[in-house]
Amino acid sequence: MQYFEDIEIGAVRDIGSHTFTEQAIIAFAKQFDPQPFHIDPVAAKGSAFGGLIASGWHTAATVMRLLVDSAVELDASLGSPGFDDLAWLKPVRPGDTIRARMTCLDKAPSRSRPGIGSARFLVEAFNQNDEMVMRYTSIGIMRFRNPA
Amino acid sequence: MQYFEDIEIGAVRDIGSHTFTEQAIIAFAKQFDPQPFHIDPVAAKGSAFGGLIASGWHTAATVMRLLVDSAVELDASLGSPGFDDLAWLKPVRPGDTIRARMTCLDKAPSRSRPGIGSARFLVEAFNQNDEMVMRYTSIGIMRFRNPA
Repeated sequence: MQYFEDIEIGAVRDIGSHTFTEQAIIAFAKQFDPQPFHIDPVAAKGSAFGGLIASGWHTAATVMRLLVDSAVELDASLGSPGFDDLAWLKPVRPGDTIRARMTCLDKAPSRSRPGIGSARFLVEAFNQNDEMVMRYTSIGIMRFRNPA
Repeated sequence: MQYFEDIEIGAVRDIGSHTFTEQAIIAFAKQFDPQPFHIDPVAAKGSAFGGLIASGWHTAATVMRLLVDSAVELDASLGSPGFDDLAWLKPVRPGDTIRARMTCLDKAPSRSRPGIGSARFLVEAFNQNDEMVMRYTSIGIMRFRNPA
């Protein structure tokens, strides 16, 4: 996300990767999404998914962590008003390593708040077989490095 | 979400409430969204938000938990392919009690998979002052209770 001036429309940025463990998948889902195919390996095996899969919210939150660690300039970020078109395309399973990248789609200065702008990013996550597992479009609000 | 036949288009369903503690806000954000306004009460006070606020992903995951506890028929649910138009409209702060409701927008049987259907829901979350804090549109996939 960086400062507004630093953001280049069309630029693609790798934001790192994370390996999902069975333990972490179950721990997240017990707290936030306790459906059998997220928390119970035996029940999951008999489910439509054929085994344990991560909650989609776990995948989304994990990619947020990658974004914060690699792409958010903490002094510049003013958070996000939301996202669009989140799609969970493939299950994330224990042992899967998910890498993500972001592409700036467009950016614009705020019309009402001097020194502040917003940018839209396509965020895509892939597993170790290069299959896309999640995709969404996110909006970030950030400061200018040098307000006029 | 329930079984496909149980879902009534236009029906509004309260799915319960949850109170966010400072401790839980910080714990979630330390793991998934470690921006200063989510993890550091002192830095948050000096931020644009004027105090600690929950990660939007924490709010979303918490509402997922309300959905699972109150509205998902575990034998029927086949998960979700994604979400649209998620908007974080107001900050969620320590002590805020967030209640949520879901409204079925439409539903349709699968054309390719007998005994399975999908439905779209508007999910809305409000704070204790009846201000909407989050909104999104979700798709759920579920079984028929009585497949033809």
